[in-house]
Amino acid sequence: MVTTMTSDDPQVMSIKHMAFAVRDAQQALDSYVRFLGVVPTGVQEYPKSRNRVALFELGGVEYQLCQSMDQGGRFDTWINERGHEGLHHICYEVRDLDQVLAHALAGGASLRICQACGVYGKHPHPEGFIAFLDNDTGGIELEFMQVYTSQELQTYQQVQGI
Amino acid sequence: MVTTMTSDDPQVMSIKHMAFAVRDAQQALDSYVRFLGVVPTGVQEYPKSRNRVALFELGGVEYQLCQSMDQGGRFDTWINERGHEGLHHICYEVRDLDQVLAHALAGGASLRICQACGVYGKHPHPEGFIAFLDNDTGGIELEFMQVYTSQELQTYQQVQGI
Repeated sequence: MVTTMTSDDPQVMSIKHMAFAVRDAQQALDSYVRFLGVVPTGVQEYPKSRNRVALFELGGVEYQLCQSMDQGGRFDTWINERGHEGLHHICYEVRDLDQVLAHALAGGASLRICQACGVYGKHPHPEGFIAFLDNDTGGIELEFMQVYTSQELQTYQQVQGI
Repeated sequence: MVTTMTSDDPQVMSIKHMAFAVRDAQQALDSYVRFLGVVPTGVQEYPKSRNRVALFELGGVEYQLCQSMDQGGRFDTWINERGHEGLHHICYEVRDLDQVLAHALAGGASLRICQACGVYGKHPHPEGFIAFLDNDTGGIELEFMQVYTSQELQTYQQVQGI
């Protein structure tokens, strides 16, 4: 049964992260430092998903500036399709991922494969269970994350590097 | 003098709103309702900026789903350039707009005209003083807002409908 969600008890609680498709993660980070005063961070490489990513937090939201390490990669393709960098997807933190997916599927959504893991629907990532929809909201791809409890974090601590 | 900003005293505090360029504000709103359980809101028309906008709040961030009422309008042009809907700009709430603009200009930024008001730099809008940069961060246009104090809100209460 899909529970009706109200603003008093939202299943989708907040923005966990926003992932921006950029041509050069270091240059994009530099612009956040120069124009917004963001504290500089490093740029990490993620071998499984083949991305170079600058991470920082601003106003409670994690920003991921994502550069594909290969031509034809996930973010490179996105930029080439549009001719512009931009917001690739929003990951929303949810209370109960099963319930959120049931609501979305009942509303006409379908699941998208996780390109890094080759899995449709709910599956473990480093910080929590995630799932992607094969639908967008106003041009923005959707990811959901049910952040691990401390016990789950122990169980899934081997899930790294995505 | 431009003050160095640290994470302990950030001038850029949080996301005030995110404005998405969409082809149809009502349809985009419907997708947020169906896939994320957002509580439905209405769609407003803003005669000065010639936009049709669906507004809602999610996790402390105001979402603006913005449809140009005219071909060749601000959001229509943006979509046509990319062939896709997406995130048009982020408005950041700042403590002191003069200080934020001084920092950004020292970092190589320049000011962009407010298309609704025909003004460069800091000027009054319905909720606060705003300014646009003629620069982007990873493909995202930048707006800053210093939200009015209750006294300023009285002074500028005639600024409406933008």
